[in-house]
Amino acid sequence: MKVRKLSLTDAKFERSPGQEADIFTADLIGAGDGGPVTVGYGRWGEGESLTETMAVHATMIVLEGRLTVWSDAGEVELSPGDIAYMPEGQTVTIRAHEGGATTAYVTYPHWAEAK
Amino acid sequence: MKVRKLSLTDAKFERSPGQEADIFTADLIGAGDGGPVTVGYGRWGEGESLTETMAVHATMIVLEGRLTVWSDAGEVELSPGDIAYMPEGQTVTIRAHEGGATTAYVTYPHWAEAK
Repeated sequence: MKVRKLSLTDAKFERSPGQEADIFTADLIGAGDGGPVTVGYGRWGEGESLTETMAVHATMIVLEGRLTVWSDAGEVELSPGDIAYMPEGQTVTIRAHEGGATTAYVTYPHWAEAK
Repeated sequence: MKVRKLSLTDAKFERSPGQEADIFTADLIGAGDGGPVTVGYGRWGEGESLTETMAVHATMIVLEGRLTVWSDAGEVELSPGDIAYMPEGQTVTIRAHEGGATTAYVTYPHWAEAK
């Protein structure tokens, strides 16, 4: 595999599986590319939230907007440039603030296979 | 391990090993945390560049500024929100444009152990 540039303009967003909120994901690097991680973008509607027990180790980088993440570790608020590291097995609730949010994520291993 | 919030204000930047340019990295999650990936931030001085053969699979997310990445895949220019996925074994040259750049990165496995 060679070096790849990923861009929001290449993202084909789909509703995040297993929930009905306006939360969309777009994997741009996945299992089919032969590497160990999935890389993609997330789009969060204003006030939308999800609760999930992590099947993979996920790193979420905030590009636009703000989100709050609740977990056993308490409540943290994320602004652009902030990162949430969410280890496998942890249960998290993530909610987007006013105006929604855009995120990037890296999961190890591939989250689409771990669901 | 529990959920962790990482923030640029928590980053203790050090000069990137093996080079003398004004390129600094700050690992905030590493091998000592027990997970599979290293997560951190990078700071690039204006016009500074490095050439490296990737010892790990690295995902670099641009937070501020612009960078160009040269590799076997050609030349790509990255702006805020863009991501470079750089697989193990690929040789890359990365250069920051005017004003420098700030990036976030996720490596699998831990780059500090793979050097």
